[in-house]
Amino acid sequence: MTGDKKSVVTPWEVSGAVDYDKLIKEFGTQALDLAQLAEQKDAPPFIRRGLYFSHRDFPQWIGDAEKGKKVSIVTGRGPSEKMHIGHLVPFIVAQYFQKKYGCMVYIPFSDDEKFFVKKGLTQEQVAAFAQDNMLDVLALGFNPAKTKIFSDFEYTKIYKYAALIAKKTTFSAAKATFGFQGDTNIGFIFYPAVQSAHIYMPQFLEGAQRTLVPIAIDQDPYMRILRDVADALGFIKPGAIHAQFLPGLSGNAKMSASEAENDVIFLTDTPEQVKKKINKYAFSGGKDTLEEHRKQGGNPTVDISFLYLKYLFEPDDKKLAKIEKDYRAGKLLSGELKAILIEKVNAFLKEHQKKREQAKKLVSRFTLT
Amino acid sequence: MTGDKKSVVTPWEVSGAVDYDKLIKEFGTQALDLAQLAEQKDAPPFIRRGLYFSHRDFPQWIGDAEKGKKVSIVTGRGPSEKMHIGHLVPFIVAQYFQKKYGCMVYIPFSDDEKFFVKKGLTQEQVAAFAQDNMLDVLALGFNPAKTKIFSDFEYTKIYKYAALIAKKTTFSAAKATFGFQGDTNIGFIFYPAVQSAHIYMPQFLEGAQRTLVPIAIDQDPYMRILRDVADALGFIKPGAIHAQFLPGLSGNAKMSASEAENDVIFLTDTPEQVKKKINKYAFSGGKDTLEEHRKQGGNPTVDISFLYLKYLFEPDDKKLAKIEKDYRAGKLLSGELKAILIEKVNAFLKEHQKKREQAKKLVSRFTLT
Repeated sequence: MTGDKKSVVTPWEVSGAVDYDKLIKEFGTQALDLAQLAEQKDAPPFIRRGLYFSHRDFPQWIGDAEKGKKVSIVTGRGPSEKMHIGHLVPFIVAQYFQKKYGCMVYIPFSDDEKFFVKKGLTQEQVAAFAQDNMLDVLALGFNPAKTKIFSDFEYTKIYKYAALIAKKTTFSAAKATFGFQGDTNIGFIFYPAVQSAHIYMPQFLEGAQRTLVPIAIDQDPYMRILRDVADALGFIKPGAIHAQFLPGLSGNAKMSASEAENDVIFLTDTPEQVKKKINKYAFSGGKDTLEEHRKQGGNPTVDISFLYLKYLFEPDDKKLAKIEKDYRAGKLLSGELKAILIEKVNAFLKEHQKKREQAKKLVSRFTLT
Repeated sequence: MTGDKKSVVTPWEVSGAVDYDKLIKEFGTQALDLAQLAEQKDAPPFIRRGLYFSHRDFPQWIGDAEKGKKVSIVTGRGPSEKMHIGHLVPFIVAQYFQKKYGCMVYIPFSDDEKFFVKKGLTQEQVAAFAQDNMLDVLALGFNPAKTKIFSDFEYTKIYKYAALIAKKTTFSAAKATFGFQGDTNIGFIFYPAVQSAHIYMPQFLEGAQRTLVPIAIDQDPYMRILRDVADALGFIKPGAIHAQFLPGLSGNAKMSASEAENDVIFLTDTPEQVKKKINKYAFSGGKDTLEEHRKQGGNPTVDISFLYLKYLFEPDDKKLAKIEKDYRAGKLLSGELKAILIEKVNAFLKEHQKKREQAKKLVSRFTLT
């Protein structure tokens, strides 16, 4: 599904075949104990089934959480478009741990990052996307007493916090991590300090504690640069768990609407749109002809419909195992597999879109001031 | 008084002999019409007597002001120390034009700049200096209905406004203007966008208009970089009038407490401190012996006491002319000249320190929120 293209993994570009074991070595992170995660029966399916594969200081965070110590989670969103199903992954993680450990969750919306990075985007546009995206996040049902959302252009103290980190971050260090060039605008150069401030928000507001950041692996450079200033700030280095990318419908390495609108399922898509996109674009591991498929069976490991069921939409291990077995055996056809996914996605979106509407009344209760 | 040292004029360093005509050429500014300024009998003495020597678009600003069009002034303060008498100059200009034309005056306190630039300084320290310095500024008696003060770390919208400019400012452009290096921290690199946002505050808040910035000539690089983005923002390029440096007591090119505490008269100095500093440190244009001085006379053009009277403390042209004449003739001795200055400074400071105390109750009325 990915193949020959050169592999690129930076916070702004993911393309080509991704070798996740190699990334662990390159980025200097640790492999997660996948067998142990598989045992966590109450965890979201994508955690039990290995989408999160790497970490920094995760056992220490869990250790503190299990002991009842104050721990926290930060996971943000860059609001430059409507949200798709892949965007929900880290928020589902946050919500799972909040339920389990009662921890604080901070959700920054980096309207500034998107404004600085995306050429044509105005402040009004990022503000509108932030307002819209907040609904999708709050639709998941966070605890309002333990969850704070904010956007950088509206939250009054972010510049002051970011300044504390900016003063300790040289241009050389930022350039080495992010590859800034002469034509990079100075807002973009400052932004890593803001992103770092996000991750330190729990410690700025409530003192030293372990913080966990569930992110896709491409965002890890931010973790490296922000962990470097922990000692100087008198804080504990934040930890992270890193996800593999959820592929796009066509099999692109990372689901991304900026690449192709038809490659993603938006959280606001209608049942008809979902049906059409999956039937038309979802990369299939099935064989070309019915006869061949019946005889040789399909390959679920590259089949996008199967992968979406595995990571997001079929939490029941037995049901998933049967789907996999039947598909490999050629008993389940590609169109039938897609039909299962379509039904699951539309059931989820129906509920999500209802909660999304209800969330409009909740935004102010969650907003950090 | 300045002599052989290599001349350096940047926003962070002023040293050596300063050739102001050369700076006009180097910086690409215009010479002010000094004869015309000398006619402005109601203007502060340092304006009538040539301390301001250069400008950008000043006639256009005056033209709009005279026509009763909406115009504004922005002049700020970097709060990294107590204020000395030289720091008052641009605020006296602002107050003069506010009285004359009823224009809005914005006074930003760049606590962020000082925090980023000065290595040991904490956010708490710059905040305390900002609080202190605001009293000196407000002691001048600005119109509360037409004057807004704010500090960058406290004013909630500055980051958002600065971002608009940052997005249009490349690292190369900022580096070319300010000479940033690899070890420059990323807050400092972002700061020119904040300083630019200060100057555009009147236009951000009240629409396109001519804005005047009274500054010492070393700050002109900021004007250049911010004028470049005016068109992109749909605003009018802000104008400036540039002052020569008010020399330190010992004759240093620029009065600066960071160079030597004894080289400046602080606005909070006691009468005894003033007397001691002027008598001990004020560079004299008088002769070495009484006999010589009586015979050959003193040189007022290099005499710091005379220069302070000329620019700040003796508004009466006739009295100043008599002092100059008597000093040149050897009738007025160095010690007598110093005594005149000491009396004037202490009379001013007595009144200033009283108003400074009263200003404590005024800060909140002036603060932009």
